[in-house]
Amino acid sequence: MPLSMYDASVPVFARTLRNLDRVLAKGEAYARERGADPDALLQSRLIFDMLPLVRQVQIATDMATRGASRLAGEETRSVEDNETTFAQLHARIAAALAHIEGFAPAQFVDSESRAITVKSRRGDLDFDGRSYLFEYVLPNLYFHATTAYNLLRQAGVAIGKADYLGVA
Amino acid sequence: MPLSMYDASVPVFARTLRNLDRVLAKGEAYARERGADPDALLQSRLIFDMLPLVRQVQIATDMATRGASRLAGEETRSVEDNETTFAQLHARIAAALAHIEGFAPAQFVDSESRAITVKSRRGDLDFDGRSYLFEYVLPNLYFHATTAYNLLRQAGVAIGKADYLGVA
Repeated sequence: MPLSMYDASVPVFARTLRNLDRVLAKGEAYARERGADPDALLQSRLIFDMLPLVRQVQIATDMATRGASRLAGEETRSVEDNETTFAQLHARIAAALAHIEGFAPAQFVDSESRAITVKSRRGDLDFDGRSYLFEYVLPNLYFHATTAYNLLRQAGVAIGKADYLGVA
Repeated sequence: MPLSMYDASVPVFARTLRNLDRVLAKGEAYARERGADPDALLQSRLIFDMLPLVRQVQIATDMATRGASRLAGEETRSVEDNETTFAQLHARIAAALAHIEGFAPAQFVDSESRAITVKSRRGDLDFDGRSYLFEYVLPNLYFHATTAYNLLRQAGVAIGKADYLGVA
């Protein structure tokens, strides 16, 4: 079977979110072992003017859900960014997985040439489906999954690249 | 044109390396402005037992060059990890770009089903071309590009996500 836009998006997004979910669970367990409030860890940042861990997870899920919706030609859904606990973030990831895995491969046929516009602080970014996936969604999704990993790793959580890759 | 394995690899790797190259240049300029030795920045780490910036860049280039070679069915080339300066890292990135952009799309036809084995500390990882690209090369390439960005960002370099994405 030749590569399809579906192959390059939904299962890749899902795998990344599941790996993120497991890395987060290790972070939560680590905070509990140390007798710290796990939710304080969610507010950690690499530097004061970068987004905290909780936002890294929220944005990662948004990249996956909006990415799949736009490629399928559907409206993006809006989710409130109101999580303050690990339990709530796990639920957000589960909802994102249910959303993206609800799409059928047929909905992604010809999506490589679909016109997609993303609003950004620097103005509209115009893509076709292929450039949207490979120049925006995937680099952003991995950026936020990696930054979440780096925040936990820097905090001392015993995770390794195999956890991030899901080969552990 | 439907999506091809070439589309999903060589231009994506190249874009990521070029963005990394520009982010590195901003890091070097920042160190010079502060009167610091830029090469000391290359030894910075998020935590003592993570790899330093120089290694993040070396591994990112290896992911791209080995990824393209393996998908094209060629032997991977071995490069010494001996860079100690920004200038040497820019040269390594330029060599990696020349290597991957030397492949023709025709060399990637049917690569989605090519059997590929990667040696890891945990033993052999067995892939087909598709899973190798989407479960190993791309997540690793983005991991190391993002970690390099995070190291520079945490050090105070004035870079933003637009630099990482190459939309600045």
